[in-house]
Amino acid sequence: MNYKIIMHTLGWVLNIEAAAMLLPLICAAVYGEPYVLLFAFCILLCLIFGLPLTIKAPKKKSMYAREGFIAVALSWIVLSIFGALPFYISGFIPSFIDALFETVSGFTTTGASILTDVEALPKSLLFWRSFTHWIGGMGVLVFLVAILPLSGGNNLYLIKAESPGPAVSKLVPKVKSTAKILYQMYLVMTLIEIALLLLGGVTLFDALTLSFGTAGTGGFGILNSSIADYSPYVQVVITIFMILFGIDFSLYYLLLLRKVKDVLHSDELRAYLGIILCSIAVIVINCRGLFSTLSETIRHAAFQVGSIITTTGYSTTDFDKWPELSKTILVTLMFIGACAGSTGGGIKVSRIIIFVKSIFKELITAVHPNSVRKITLNKRPVEHEVVRVVNVYMAAYIMIFVTSILIISIDNFDFTTNFTAIAATLNNIGPGLNAVGPTQNFSIYSPLSTLVFIADMLIGRLEIFPLLLLFTPPAWRK
Amino acid sequence: MNYKIIMHTLGWVLNIEAAAMLLPLICAAVYGEPYVLLFAFCILLCLIFGLPLTIKAPKKKSMYAREGFIAVALSWIVLSIFGALPFYISGFIPSFIDALFETVSGFTTTGASILTDVEALPKSLLFWRSFTHWIGGMGVLVFLVAILPLSGGNNLYLIKAESPGPAVSKLVPKVKSTAKILYQMYLVMTLIEIALLLLGGVTLFDALTLSFGTAGTGGFGILNSSIADYSPYVQVVITIFMILFGIDFSLYYLLLLRKVKDVLHSDELRAYLGIILCSIAVIVINCRGLFSTLSETIRHAAFQVGSIITTTGYSTTDFDKWPELSKTILVTLMFIGACAGSTGGGIKVSRIIIFVKSIFKELITAVHPNSVRKITLNKRPVEHEVVRVVNVYMAAYIMIFVTSILIISIDNFDFTTNFTAIAATLNNIGPGLNAVGPTQNFSIYSPLSTLVFIADMLIGRLEIFPLLLLFTPPAWRK
Repeated sequence: MNYKIIMHTLGWVLNIEAAAMLLPLICAAVYGEPYVLLFAFCILLCLIFGLPLTIKAPKKKSMYAREGFIAVALSWIVLSIFGALPFYISGFIPSFIDALFETVSGFTTTGASILTDVEALPKSLLFWRSFTHWIGGMGVLVFLVAILPLSGGNNLYLIKAESPGPAVSKLVPKVKSTAKILYQMYLVMTLIEIALLLLGGVTLFDALTLSFGTAGTGGFGILNSSIADYSPYVQVVITIFMILFGIDFSLYYLLLLRKVKDVLHSDELRAYLGIILCSIAVIVINCRGLFSTLSETIRHAAFQVGSIITTTGYSTTDFDKWPELSKTILVTLMFIGACAGSTGGGIKVSRIIIFVKSIFKELITAVHPNSVRKITLNKRPVEHEVVRVVNVYMAAYIMIFVTSILIISIDNFDFTTNFTAIAATLNNIGPGLNAVGPTQNFSIYSPLSTLVFIADMLIGRLEIFPLLLLFTPPAWRK
Repeated sequence: MNYKIIMHTLGWVLNIEAAAMLLPLICAAVYGEPYVLLFAFCILLCLIFGLPLTIKAPKKKSMYAREGFIAVALSWIVLSIFGALPFYISGFIPSFIDALFETVSGFTTTGASILTDVEALPKSLLFWRSFTHWIGGMGVLVFLVAILPLSGGNNLYLIKAESPGPAVSKLVPKVKSTAKILYQMYLVMTLIEIALLLLGGVTLFDALTLSFGTAGTGGFGILNSSIADYSPYVQVVITIFMILFGIDFSLYYLLLLRKVKDVLHSDELRAYLGIILCSIAVIVINCRGLFSTLSETIRHAAFQVGSIITTTGYSTTDFDKWPELSKTILVTLMFIGACAGSTGGGIKVSRIIIFVKSIFKELITAVHPNSVRKITLNKRPVEHEVVRVVNVYMAAYIMIFVTSILIISIDNFDFTTNFTAIAATLNNIGPGLNAVGPTQNFSIYSPLSTLVFIADMLIGRLEIFPLLLLFTPPAWRK
């Protein structure tokens, strides 16, 4: 185990966080809020720990799978602890566990909140809260790999551990260039959304924070009513961009290279759009009569489907009041999640495809015991190793899900609340149903349950293994 | 595809069902009920279809995996349709779909009921209802293989398709002898339970029906209060036998051979008993204060844990009123289920063990990428193929679970009711929570949902693949 490279990585993560906090500091200055010093102090704290670790690059730069996993897991924990300081020190979230929940919810792009009144927060803190979504969406280590010279080819493991999906595809041979391209596309798409929202008459502050929440598929709103009070135009723009940010970014790169055919051949994209369209159609039929016009029904259905499958978590209406079929569809979408290689969470459409195809393959094997065929995804065979890891992923996912529900059920809330609370945090969505529905929040749970949610959000964002490895003693041996 | 051998098998299944119906006919005669003719008529119907199919043995006796799967799936459907006739013709269950639900619930040893007043049924129908549990518990095709000379070695596929668990182990080299030994042990254990219940002052009728329900891990009660109104002695006897019938029968055979060490080495047995003890302990602590004495609390907790993990479904108390943690533990046990090779349902403890071990194996692989090790179960390595099939089983299980919940949610009952209704039928348990709790029944659902439950009970009992193969077109090609 190369401890030095891990500490070095942690140092850089803190330096980047310090840089990121400059934005809310500027925001505080612009709006004349008394929190300039608060953010300056937090930046100083990040640098006090970050700079000493990064002054000297470690001699041994080798980083293998376990170093990559452990570095990413620890980075996200450190990032969240320091990121929680503004909420805690300012006194707006008096309990540190609650502040940590809110920050982890931000970085992991969950969007679940313990705040009962979001609008009571000053603009600079709201900005930081939403900006954590944008940082967490594409990932802080992807950013680190993109900008730092320290790397070497081994940094693929950092990206592997942080990027969602069963298999990471490098866009270009160099990891560093891949990371750069990803962040450039991410930035451009975010800027386009900001511009479109500004065109809709939204203030710059709202356009920025809403876009951060959409781009990272996060879901923190700056109003207690989430997106319900914005104009239909704004809701439609956000719907489209939520769905766009839920698509594998490598497809956008293929588009830039004009490989349109390859994009159209993507099983995952087709399944993703197919699921979205079917879900909207069924919900529109199921919810007819709830809204005054058909177009309003379609708008709310499309918004909510886009919001939940991409694991954003914004809402334009209280879907907890929808009929049971529509709610069950949304709960199902919570688990499916977005595409691999997007900023979205959940199990990911590609894993579901591999899952479903493996069932058909098994049935064919029962009929023709001697047939040997591989599962294909996007017209390419899926290696047995990938299938195996997907299966183990599902096993671990289920175990964590069940354990989490058992622990939080000590608080004695009803099964639907507990089930959807874990679904909403482990899949990085935000709202669930019943007592954690879109008009409610997570403040009802005990500190023990809050810790479970914090763990689940991190486990969900980093796709289980990095976090589990932290608790695997053999991983720590030299 | 060898259609003739499948039809021949179906014929024998009907003949056996005719023979089985002699018992409720005798029961009707003993109690002077006017249903002797009813059962005589049903027996005649079975034989009209059964005898012509079995007069001539087919020339080609070869039976491969797909014939085995299809024959078993069709056998269970035919068995259930003819088994439903007494309920339907007598008029006690006026809807045929409901009568089919009740019979499938019986044969699959689920124990879920659409009857709002069980006690209104005459004794002979109650007897038939409980006797379906006993037939379904060990399996009708296992019985067929045990008694018929038609077989040949190929009949392993019939037992494979009907017996629960990831891998079927033959007790002795001959399939026929294995089936015989299984049924002998099943019979002896049932007789012991009947004797112990009689010693507790229970009537012969009650002792028989209760034992059928325990042995098959079925759960149909003959009182509306299930087991609540019986003496603590009876409850304790049933608790012990439920747990005993949830154990792999091959372990009892090892005991008969005095291979005690092999029994103690069984990972599955140890995990099964461990889960039971831990669950009881936590529920006792969680439910303290609900009952007047500690021993009463332990008795109810042990009964309910034994009833749910073995997927029997008897109840001594309304556990829907227990605190959320205890209820969540019971829901978890619903999925875990009993041991492979027992009469119980659920996912099976051995599959869970393979699941958990595959997670640890993956973590070790992440630390030491070059380590090659196999998962072990009961000190023996588990073949990759078994692990793969377990994984595909889980994938199919989840897909069926989700699809089922989506369909029944059209009826607009709450999520907890829907979730536990599917959990209770797909795992062959019986009661769920809320509107399908232990004091409720399944009559609230629409005919469409009832069909989903019927399918899920069969899918659960036959462990998915036989039923899915029925709908796989390539399986039907010559």
